[in-house]
Amino acid sequence: MTEIEARKDAASRAARLDAVFAALADPTRRAIIERLSRSEARVTEVAEPFHMSLNAVSKHIRVLEASGVVERRRKGRDHILSINTHSLDEVDGWIERMRRYWEGRLDAMERLLRELKTDYKLGPKDRRPKDRKHGPR
Amino acid sequence: MTEIEARKDAASRAARLDAVFAALADPTRRAIIERLSRSEARVTEVAEPFHMSLNAVSKHIRVLEASGVVERRRKGRDHILSINTHSLDEVDGWIERMRRYWEGRLDAMERLLRELKTDYKLGPKDRRPKDRKHGPR
Repeated sequence: MTEIEARKDAASRAARLDAVFAALADPTRRAIIERLSRSEARVTEVAEPFHMSLNAVSKHIRVLEASGVVERRRKGRDHILSINTHSLDEVDGWIERMRRYWEGRLDAMERLLRELKTDYKLGPKDRRPKDRKHGPR
Repeated sequence: MTEIEARKDAASRAARLDAVFAALADPTRRAIIERLSRSEARVTEVAEPFHMSLNAVSKHIRVLEASGVVERRRKGRDHILSINTHSLDEVDGWIERMRRYWEGRLDAMERLLRELKTDYKLGPKDRRPKDRKHGPR
């Protein structure tokens, strides 16, 4: 891959992440995703539980389609909506990477706390040479 | 919890999810989070790698602070930024719940595919009674 291709690739990956995160930043759209996670459904079925016009729900559905999270296919006169299960892989990957960083830091903090506790227990008052255990470094 | 309290609680949880997802829907803000995931840093250190004004980066930082993902504390004349590692727990929980749904569906699909394959291998041409293994249901 040339440098220009690599940059285009990174840019389109970033644009996809932007679109998916923006699509998720709304409670109605998240509720639509939750509904479609249970089973695919017709547009009217998806709209039914919401206290808003079909037109308003349709706008949210179009945002979800543009982000790639929701797909639409025609079945006779019906429009069937379903989740594209791969669309959140990149988002999930990003969150997962951040989590690994944090867990690494939290683990390091935990180790530090354990060491501090041990040092406290073996503090000046109680410290005797035989209490010190030196393992291989 | 009364019904009104429960509704307020759900509404504020939804508002927090909205804010965090919206904060993540921008490549500069995601890059700032990645930077701070490695270590806390001063505002000027965070701004340094970006080809934009300190003012532009500061605006992004304020969005991240408003969402609760980034925290700021003063240390003498410096403003130190760090990640609030708990802020993404709710987002992570939501994505995780969706993933469980999907994995359940993908597992079901896989089982179906395996059954179809087995049926294909043991199709009309080859099917003999002794090929059928009946385990406990």
